[in-house]
Amino acid sequence: MAVQPRVLKGFRDYLPERMIARMRFIRRVQESVERFGFLPVETPALELAELLLTKGGDEVARQVYRFTDSGGRDVCLRYDLTVPLARMMAQHGRALPSPFKRYQIAPSWRGEKPQRGRFREFYQCDADIVGSDSLAADAECLAVGCDLMAAVGIAEYRIRISHRRILDGLAVLMGVEAGDAHALYRAVDKIEKIGAEGVLAEIRKFAPDVAPEVLERFLALSGEVDSLDPLAAIDAVDGLFGGGGAGAEGAAELRQVIERAIEMGVTVGHLAIDISIARGMDYYTGAIFETRALRMPELGSVMSGGRYDGLIGTFSGKDVPAVGISLGLDRIFDGLAEGGELELPRSTAQVMVTLFDDEGRAAAHALARRLREAGVAVEVPLERRALKKQLRAADRGGVSYV
Amino acid sequence: MAVQPRVLKGFRDYLPERMIARMRFIRRVQESVERFGFLPVETPALELAELLLTKGGDEVARQVYRFTDSGGRDVCLRYDLTVPLARMMAQHGRALPSPFKRYQIAPSWRGEKPQRGRFREFYQCDADIVGSDSLAADAECLAVGCDLMAAVGIAEYRIRISHRRILDGLAVLMGVEAGDAHALYRAVDKIEKIGAEGVLAEIRKFAPDVAPEVLERFLALSGEVDSLDPLAAIDAVDGLFGGGGAGAEGAAELRQVIERAIEMGVTVGHLAIDISIARGMDYYTGAIFETRALRMPELGSVMSGGRYDGLIGTFSGKDVPAVGISLGLDRIFDGLAEGGELELPRSTAQVMVTLFDDEGRAAAHALARRLREAGVAVEVPLERRALKKQLRAADRGGVSYV
Repeated sequence: MAVQPRVLKGFRDYLPERMIARMRFIRRVQESVERFGFLPVETPALELAELLLTKGGDEVARQVYRFTDSGGRDVCLRYDLTVPLARMMAQHGRALPSPFKRYQIAPSWRGEKPQRGRFREFYQCDADIVGSDSLAADAECLAVGCDLMAAVGIAEYRIRISHRRILDGLAVLMGVEAGDAHALYRAVDKIEKIGAEGVLAEIRKFAPDVAPEVLERFLALSGEVDSLDPLAAIDAVDGLFGGGGAGAEGAAELRQVIERAIEMGVTVGHLAIDISIARGMDYYTGAIFETRALRMPELGSVMSGGRYDGLIGTFSGKDVPAVGISLGLDRIFDGLAEGGELELPRSTAQVMVTLFDDEGRAAAHALARRLREAGVAVEVPLERRALKKQLRAADRGGVSYV
Repeated sequence: MAVQPRVLKGFRDYLPERMIARMRFIRRVQESVERFGFLPVETPALELAELLLTKGGDEVARQVYRFTDSGGRDVCLRYDLTVPLARMMAQHGRALPSPFKRYQIAPSWRGEKPQRGRFREFYQCDADIVGSDSLAADAECLAVGCDLMAAVGIAEYRIRISHRRILDGLAVLMGVEAGDAHALYRAVDKIEKIGAEGVLAEIRKFAPDVAPEVLERFLALSGEVDSLDPLAAIDAVDGLFGGGGAGAEGAAELRQVIERAIEMGVTVGHLAIDISIARGMDYYTGAIFETRALRMPELGSVMSGGRYDGLIGTFSGKDVPAVGISLGLDRIFDGLAEGGELELPRSTAQVMVTLFDDEGRAAAHALARRLREAGVAVEVPLERRALKKQLRAADRGGVSYV
């Protein structure tokens, strides 16, 4: 064969050592969301492009794997788990309980530029609550988010929280027109990358006359509240908006979300108000979440989400409120594995039954059968080899008992 | 939105009721293969077409989802789990134990005509042993196959077994040229669909002068041995070939495979020799397996496989023997679900903590937290509703305790 066997750039094989650990990792994630009553679903890997690409924005349109199938349909691989959920709810919502709490652990595909920690095929675990406008649903996303962090072994993390209405309030204060609000959010979202000067330059592209003072106050406040207790931070944000308008409404909602989360047992030290976060997606309408693992800052956000009350309505024509959180499963697993914080077992087999001679084979298999019936994973060598070789294989394979 | 929300033809959503049962089903499959010491791997959904399409044959080439990605690469979605394994072994084989026993539970995609029980996205569980030419490896595939059948709750089934060399022997007896051997296998494989006359007509397309007598004897024998004890059946097959040539070699190998399988605890009543099976794929070189669930004949083969000693060599240039078995996971799950033979739980939550009043919320959450810490899945309503409504929701959701 002329072609060298290899995987596509941005893709990878999981060999057993990594895969066994990853399956256990995924299992802990699954147990965490199930403890909160979220129910599993699965949606197809391929969908009609016309349906999935309505809400992703330009970046997604550039990255998605899209093609024409042999039946002439314009299809694409899913690039997240949220838009397929919205499509599914519009299609099957009436057959499901309300509110509906679902989780999905599955790969998505994006042809983004491969770089450290970014792959073109990546697993996420999304947990969403559809059909409730109660802020308790937002709070429960924070509660399950904290449980997920504990489940995957991240003790030091901060969930940074903002609200779409706070950014709306900023747009009003700055005199940015409603049509340019999205461009403003995207500019603010880049603060970590391009700094205050850069953000202002971006904004001036569409609002050349904007005065820098409001933005400066906003960004200064953003820096100040980051380290405050979240309820004190909300007071300060409320002050910026003089207690009125969209910004104050956003602050008031966040206060309720955080009070309810604390009531649910969330440790307040894991939460921080960060009014500079806006998230790439345009569909958020309320609270917005982003999470940093404090000892792995290079991973960026490891868990993010928010409220998106308009998305499902674009499919069903009927507004259905929804809020959710998405765990970057592969990103976290890779970070922990690289940091040496994961046990990488070499085998799932617990016992190897050795073969001494061909006459003993039937007895060895009978023993293996009894152990398997008791739920023990057992390896029996296919052919008799020197005992030393069998023992070495058991040792290399990480088998506990011989 | 102009477009009606829907999934692509041949694809489907799994809503919780079906998904919970399916995840438990997959878990039992996983436990079964792990009891035999098979190790999990995962390979990418997308691969280079040039690599995957070398060995699939024409039917696969017609059905595969193939396209050019935005980087200009000719790629396709995997259509099975065997060819990616061969590619992976050629790439990483030296880092892996030998023999290497791997399993993979994953979806594949084929754009075949959707019909009852056939989907374009389907899960399989493949268990393969790579790097051993011992017939004990073939036997272990039968042993794990029987364990899999028990694990998924199919008590009545028959694994039908043949051998590529028996078909080679038939080609020799019929005077079919070596170049036409594949066409002969495909013709014989259609016996159930088109009958003896049809098979003969197919063969005459490439071997117009072939005498029907040998084929008739072969097909008659095929019918006779089907109900025999497999070792007696092998004697009869051996007789057809007069104890010599390729056919007799195949029979002798099958005898060893079956003797070893019995030694491993396989119940002989689950095995039958069926010399008419050939399998669609061209890469089998030794034993060939196909399995029918006797109470669900409409499903066709629910588990199939065989020995393919040449496939990995086409990637690595070095011959590596391999044998495996592939369980049609979704096909079996669908069959059992349609037959009403699966419990379909509506929830994963075991307990609902009810809310009596807003003051009691903190206490309710404290109780939920304690239960979750003990590993119990707990649902707490987001907002207080009439107790009757809460109880009705618990009941609809299949929660066991309130």
